[in-house]
Amino acid sequence: MYLHVQQLIHDIAQDEPDPAAANALQEGLGGQFGEMRTMMQYLFQSMNFRGDPRSKPYKDLMQGIGTEEISHVELIGTTIARLTDGSPRYQGKQTDPLDAPGGGGATPLASALTEGNIHHYLVGAQGALPVDSAGNPWSGSYVYNSGNLVLDLLYNLMLESTGRLQKCRLYEMTSNKTARSTISYLIVRDQAHENAYARALETLGVDWKKTLPIPKTNAERFPEVAALVEQGLQSVNYTFDLTGASEASKILRGPSPSNDGTELSVPRQAPEGGEPTTVAPPRFEEYAPGADPELLDLIAATAELEAAEVENTFEAVSKG
Amino acid sequence: MYLHVQQLIHDIAQDEPDPAAANALQEGLGGQFGEMRTMMQYLFQSMNFRGDPRSKPYKDLMQGIGTEEISHVELIGTTIARLTDGSPRYQGKQTDPLDAPGGGGATPLASALTEGNIHHYLVGAQGALPVDSAGNPWSGSYVYNSGNLVLDLLYNLMLESTGRLQKCRLYEMTSNKTARSTISYLIVRDQAHENAYARALETLGVDWKKTLPIPKTNAERFPEVAALVEQGLQSVNYTFDLTGASEASKILRGPSPSNDGTELSVPRQAPEGGEPTTVAPPRFEEYAPGADPELLDLIAATAELEAAEVENTFEAVSKG
Amino acid sequence: MYLHVQQLIHDIAQDEPDPAAANALQEGLGGQFGEMRTMMQYLFQSMNFRGDPRSKPYKDLMQGIGTEEISHVELIGTTIARLTDGSPRYQGKQTDPLDAPGGGGATPLASALTEGNIHHYLVGAQGALPVDSAGNPWSGSYVYNSGNLVLDLLYNLMLESTGRLQKCRLYEMTSNKTARSTISYLIVRDQAHENAYARALETLGVDWKKTLPIPKTNAERFPEVAALVEQGLQSVNYTFDLTGASEASKILRGPSPSNDGTELSVPRQAPEGGEPTTVAPPRFEEYAPGADPELLDLIAATAELEAAEVENTFEAVSKG
Amino acid sequence: MYLHVQQLIHDIAQDEPDPAAANALQEGLGGQFGEMRTMMQYLFQSMNFRGDPRSKPYKDLMQGIGTEEISHVELIGTTIARLTDGSPRYQGKQTDPLDAPGGGGATPLASALTEGNIHHYLVGAQGALPVDSAGNPWSGSYVYNSGNLVLDLLYNLMLESTGRLQKCRLYEMTSNKTARSTISYLIVRDQAHENAYARALETLGVDWKKTLPIPKTNAERFPEVAALVEQGLQSVNYTFDLTGASEASKILRGPSPSNDGTELSVPRQAPEGGEPTTVAPPRFEEYAPGADPELLDLIAATAELEAAEVENTFEAVSKG
Amino acid sequence: MYLHVQQLIHDIAQDEPDPAAANALQEGLGGQFGEMRTMMQYLFQSMNFRGDPRSKPYKDLMQGIGTEEISHVELIGTTIARLTDGSPRYQGKQTDPLDAPGGGGATPLASALTEGNIHHYLVGAQGALPVDSAGNPWSGSYVYNSGNLVLDLLYNLMLESTGRLQKCRLYEMTSNKTARSTISYLIVRDQAHENAYARALETLGVDWKKTLPIPKTNAERFPEVAALVEQGLQSVNYTFDLTGASEASKILRGPSPSNDGTELSVPRQAPEGGEPTTVAPPRFEEYAPGADPELLDLIAATAELEAAEVENTFEAVSKG
Amino acid sequence: MYLHVQQLIHDIAQDEPDPAAANALQEGLGGQFGEMRTMMQYLFQSMNFRGDPRSKPYKDLMQGIGTEEISHVELIGTTIARLTDGSPRYQGKQTDPLDAPGGGGATPLASALTEGNIHHYLVGAQGALPVDSAGNPWSGSYVYNSGNLVLDLLYNLMLESTGRLQKCRLYEMTSNKTARSTISYLIVRDQAHENAYARALETLGVDWKKTLPIPKTNAERFPEVAALVEQGLQSVNYTFDLTGASEASKILRGPSPSNDGTELSVPRQAPEGGEPTTVAPPRFEEYAPGADPELLDLIAATAELEAAEVENTFEAVSKG
Repeated sequence: MYLHVQQLIHDIAQDEPDPAAANALQEGLGGQFGEMRTMMQYLFQSMNFRGDPRSKPYKDLMQGIGTEEISHVELIGTTIARLTDGSPRYQGKQTDPLDAPGGGGATPLASALTEGNIHHYLVGAQGALPVDSAGNPWSGSYVYNSGNLVLDLLYNLMLESTGRLQKCRLYEMTSNKTARSTISYLIVRDQAHENAYARALETLGVDWKKTLPIPKTNAERFPEVAALVEQGLQSVNYTFDLTGASEASKILRGPSPSNDGTELSVPRQAPEGGEPTTVAPPRFEEYAPGADPELLDLIAATAELEAAEVENTFEAVSKG
Repeated sequence: MYLHVQQLIHDIAQDEPDPAAANALQEGLGGQFGEMRTMMQYLFQSMNFRGDPRSKPYKDLMQGIGTEEISHVELIGTTIARLTDGSPRYQGKQTDPLDAPGGGGATPLASALTEGNIHHYLVGAQGALPVDSAGNPWSGSYVYNSGNLVLDLLYNLMLESTGRLQKCRLYEMTSNKTARSTISYLIVRDQAHENAYARALETLGVDWKKTLPIPKTNAERFPEVAALVEQGLQSVNYTFDLTGASEASKILRGPSPSNDGTELSVPRQAPEGGEPTTVAPPRFEEYAPGADPELLDLIAATAELEAAEVENTFEAVSKG
Repeated sequence: MYLHVQQLIHDIAQDEPDPAAANALQEGLGGQFGEMRTMMQYLFQSMNFRGDPRSKPYKDLMQGIGTEEISHVELIGTTIARLTDGSPRYQGKQTDPLDAPGGGGATPLASALTEGNIHHYLVGAQGALPVDSAGNPWSGSYVYNSGNLVLDLLYNLMLESTGRLQKCRLYEMTSNKTARSTISYLIVRDQAHENAYARALETLGVDWKKTLPIPKTNAERFPEVAALVEQGLQSVNYTFDLTGASEASKILRGPSPSNDGTELSVPRQAPEGGEPTTVAPPRFEEYAPGADPELLDLIAATAELEAAEVENTFEAVSKG
Repeated sequence: MYLHVQQLIHDIAQDEPDPAAANALQEGLGGQFGEMRTMMQYLFQSMNFRGDPRSKPYKDLMQGIGTEEISHVELIGTTIARLTDGSPRYQGKQTDPLDAPGGGGATPLASALTEGNIHHYLVGAQGALPVDSAGNPWSGSYVYNSGNLVLDLLYNLMLESTGRLQKCRLYEMTSNKTARSTISYLIVRDQAHENAYARALETLGVDWKKTLPIPKTNAERFPEVAALVEQGLQSVNYTFDLTGASEASKILRGPSPSNDGTELSVPRQAPEGGEPTTVAPPRFEEYAPGADPELLDLIAATAELEAAEVENTFEAVSKG
Repeated sequence: MYLHVQQLIHDIAQDEPDPAAANALQEGLGGQFGEMRTMMQYLFQSMNFRGDPRSKPYKDLMQGIGTEEISHVELIGTTIARLTDGSPRYQGKQTDPLDAPGGGGATPLASALTEGNIHHYLVGAQGALPVDSAGNPWSGSYVYNSGNLVLDLLYNLMLESTGRLQKCRLYEMTSNKTARSTISYLIVRDQAHENAYARALETLGVDWKKTLPIPKTNAERFPEVAALVEQGLQSVNYTFDLTGASEASKILRGPSPSNDGTELSVPRQAPEGGEPTTVAPPRFEEYAPGADPELLDLIAATAELEAAEVENTFEAVSKG
Repeated sequence: MYLHVQQLIHDIAQDEPDPAAANALQEGLGGQFGEMRTMMQYLFQSMNFRGDPRSKPYKDLMQGIGTEEISHVELIGTTIARLTDGSPRYQGKQTDPLDAPGGGGATPLASALTEGNIHHYLVGAQGALPVDSAGNPWSGSYVYNSGNLVLDLLYNLMLESTGRLQKCRLYEMTSNKTARSTISYLIVRDQAHENAYARALETLGVDWKKTLPIPKTNAERFPEVAALVEQGLQSVNYTFDLTGASEASKILRGPSPSNDGTELSVPRQAPEGGEPTTVAPPRFEEYAPGADPELLDLIAATAELEAAEVENTFEAVSKG
């Protein structure tokens, strides 16, 4: 069972919208080595996990990282939505609830024909899509779950390494700060997951010696990445387990397989989290107004707007 | 940000394995109207949500149901894994850590050629797959998120109704108790979600009169469904929100649009949950042993097996 | 612009339902060489047709056959619907408008797990689907339209020949009379289209000599086929053009390229057509009741049921 | 059975070719909510229709709109073909039947590398393709036909609404008059279909009150749309039934569910139709010459070019 | 540049046709971890290889294994063709060149409706298809080629290991000797390739210690596998390089990473090869007669049938 | 069984990198009518070939052309790799083995956002991909193999003709010499294959008269094509058969069906071949360094770098 907290797992830096960068980031969301895939792969591996009951720490490891990946889907999806939002820079008559694009021959969405993925403006309303940067929809055929523990771990290591490789290439494609802040965070977390799977393989017999990290990059010189590495975030993992049942920390200890001098650790159940999730502004040129004022008044007139008292099954202190 | 609890959202009844039923249930997991789709659709709709800030209850409604759907993926995935587990009924030399199928000409996996989906035994190790009951991989093209609130809600109502229709048909295809317990639970929860989206559309102006539920079925006469309807589970929704920020309960109140005499309510953050998630037994004929004893001894020899103390970011009292 | 007549293009023989035969026939509907593909290919070729204005007979040829293929989609789709209808042979309490399958543990749709394509019973309600006999959805990538007239005609000849080859194989897979009556009709019409495209290529320079028909089969010995060949239906084409503008008959004349001693001809605008299209009976176990009696009464109460007088744009004498 | 008339269902305004607009319009042809999908969905729903015989008006409604959608495929396909035709603006030696691009180093198709979809010039010969605006081929998995009447109608309403939403966005992407004339016509016809399905749901019990149209847009202020709304085209439906057997007009009456003060009606069998379909000019740089003069002479030499007299099965007075 | 030898790379044992086994083997041909994929992946990795010129041995390693995989495609494809050939066991009037199935109501292809993949009999003529065992067509999205050498090698190791895992499962699904002889050969060759990639990673720094082989299986107890392991075939690789330019043998030496006490070696350019490739018998019920006698006579009449003398670019002594 | 020679089948002219041209050429590699498809189609047709043993020349014809197509995959793949290599024109600190893009805010891969296919830079490392020019992955559903000899030959003729048509259009899209040298070579080889299949159909009865070549183009006026036609390469075929077992030359003789005055012939086993295949330079901005110097030193330190002596199974005189 899963619960949600109305906070992003990490803050997103503010910058101008940039539909081409948004399209590139789709690879990290809906691409073959993106966050939807890692999320689904680890959730399936956890559900289908087999072994001696003493193998539970390996299942918990996959379950914990899989849960983190759902939050990464949320983070990169929100980032893409911000990069597309308002990118056509249409400044029409926003006092008119249903706007008037085209009325005077205007083409407020004209930029969709030439920049990024036209579906961001035509199928969605300036939001993220479950596709890759070439427009291919995400496919269930991406998920790997052979059921053999060593093979699944080996694949996961390769998957995280490839995800990080692609994100390093993405960093080199755009200097947009909104894009780079999320790319950089995911580079460091992919490294943490790569370390986790590499460590799990060490417990099963492999000696990586100097091989890791794979690939060797210069990402630690990217300023945003450097700041996170400074905090040691590449060696920290979380259980994302609400009731303390995870045994993943039995594996996630000892010197980092990436030979950076740090020790792996599981200091907390979850990171403190970043900014709250929010409602994006209406985009009238997309006919995406949410509930318009008249409808909101209607709600007020027909229902008491005070939320009912909801009893907590699981207690939590809000971090928002 | 998401957290996990090591409990299924509902118990699964015990019965014999049944690969044909397992294959049928794949429609409810990886089909066009299955749980992976509802989950992804609502998570994308939440991430990309637009509107006046006062529209937040609608976003929270989608976010809450979307979070519940992740737990449904876990529930139906685990159900499928149990229905495939051991279904070839191979009872080989389990004292031998790597077994000996085929050694004497045996074909322990022969039933995979004629029952259900051969991929359950060939690509996976008797576990769930991200495909539908005809073997088609799940596709990102299923996700609908127009960005127009009324349209998205209308689609969601249709989606839940279709999901329930298919599950009623599934109930009629198999009498296996493991399959039926999960099917029945999902019929009732789909009804609850249908009610939620119908209610949201009522606040925006539709009067459903006698139209709901869509479709009208006789599911309430299925014994497992009847027991859950008796508890009113078709009119209850949850926020699945850990820190109390959700405003969904502003909408989820008033008489059920399905005209069954109940009131919609949000009594708790989350259901108490069912049985704990567990590690499935090894299947040597699949070469799916998890960490074998030798490897587990290796772990014991090289690391202290006591889990490190993990600090809680969010407090919770285990319900397990 | 297109118009419809509420008659099938050919009668369908009556026989028992047969879900396995229904699944096989899907190849002829939604397969790579089935009727949806021929229909779409010729409609695209007509829309995109280029050439000297004197090339119009070639466009009209494609347009006419393309229009016939829509009627073939209707014919084979209806055939499949009849082959799946009632095939689970469930004879439940049909006096009860919403029936009671499962109430007593019954599994009226159990046969869907083992025969044909489960989607016929789970996704549809015992009706045809836009997929092939292996369950793959029809794809736009099947359509061939190079824009070069000779190449397009050559492809069309190969396409009709392959369609006929597959239908001859289908004939050998089932002795169900419902299936065979439609298969046989389509074998003969594919032959007529093959002749039409071969003749068009003759006007552009090819001498087929003894090559046609491709493939050479023994289909003319199948009794249902023999009866249609006796009528010369393999050498007849139609314009399906309502206002007499088609020039296809300029090409469709002369000795048949298949060397069967007949002359090609275009005797009529359209065949007289077969049985009327009808409404299939409700299937309560599929929750597919159409408008139930209560709803039909509701219609009667709120609206005059006499149809308004509709003025004819195009006059026609009903053949129904 | 279907017949064709050699007229477009509506005229297309003349303007410059525009490959980027052509690519955008592909969404309306081969996209998930485009005309190929509505056409196929309604044809399948009609073929598979179930119910009490008195439910026939609902089947006839779907059949009639489905038939209109074939004409819409023809209209938007032709529009795309015109928008791509000559767009590379190559003005080579057209006196030479096989032209000479590249002979002097020229690259007459160079613009295909940077504008729109390269397949318009490389796979097709400046014509429409069965793909969406992101290049994805049309898929049979788009078709929805649950077999439950209320659900199918609800889906169809949502489908028409989404189609109209996307076309309003398309209008805002381009000011090309060729593109806008077809977009505007389809906006109004989608509205008419939305009204038809909403009305059908009213007869089954829903009261839409002020909810329709969904979405609320400002399209009626687009000049081309305004002209058509002025004629009331958003409240008119046709049977497209040649022999007067359709009962759809039993449903299509009464005040418009969109609250615009009009009454729904079925005044005629079919619209009078627009300009005749025509043969597009050859494009030598695509090696798309149609039958070249030499071949046309060959035809003249070997066959009498007077069309044979074709007997009419169905009488019609040409509107061409 | 590639050349062909008209011999299979290994003999295929004789046994009865078996369409269900044929379908299972499709996973090894057209599945995500089958021979078409390994072949394409290594050919792309070779074409796109980057590095210091001294990295050539790694490219040559991939090129050599990639070339071997083309021969594996040929081997497993031929095996599937034999397993489907004649499996309907139709013994009709074979003296008649075009046969007479169906003439007397016979359904010689009836078994296609219930066993294996119907496409083997309907789309192909009892031959192999480029699809997996669930009927999904092979996809270019399977190919992995990140361009980072260590990642590509790691992926290749995982790919070979998964291929071998699936083939061990296939061995347990059927006792058909035709199927098992090819499965067993490929198990051993996959092991050889796994060793090759593991060894390449050793040269780049990994110490596998006791981890390999992955997965650990009991395949060496399968009699057919045991016979090949006895010959040491799991430790032998070939260059498949005709002119001696490959440097792969610089890597492929030293103790086997699988710890079986053997040394890796490259003793020969290519194996001696097995039986000659042959022409399969006609199948009249598939209308797959090849050139019929009349046509063959025609050839004899119009052309001298003695082959022209073909000069050798590359000399070779036939092993056939 | 297949062998490889480390030479391209034809030289590639040198010119600047050009990512848009590279993307266009993907159609010729991974498109529906590209080299991967011809290769796979002919290999499947050869493996599955049926007929009287005297039909062997037809099988050998398909096998020989299929083998040549593997070399074409290699040629066009290498061409694309060269067209993408270095195209971002990043000239960073190449003395640093792991480079420093982004360190100073640089975006060395920025051009990937706007030119060609972003996957060339993000998923691959400036190399060829198994996709078409619109980014669709290659699909097994492209392969046609009906098993009927005449139909398969007719399809192959149409396939080669369409391949040539698309390559003529590609020639008109770019003046890049690297691209044009490979396009031109493939135009001429497609013509040779078209002639081969047309000739095979002649032996089976068709008289093409003046129809061929299909399509008629002006390609012979392209200078690079003219030079190859001058050598008669459009009328020459090869067996690519190492041991002289092919009987294809029984068919490949007589006047060219394309009526250009030449005679078809099979003068040699294989062409002499072009430049050697090579290792492309590292691209640090892609993290595609191959084995870095440190790793190469490691190899040198732990293994003797002299290649072992490899015995030849098949003798050959190197042409390198």
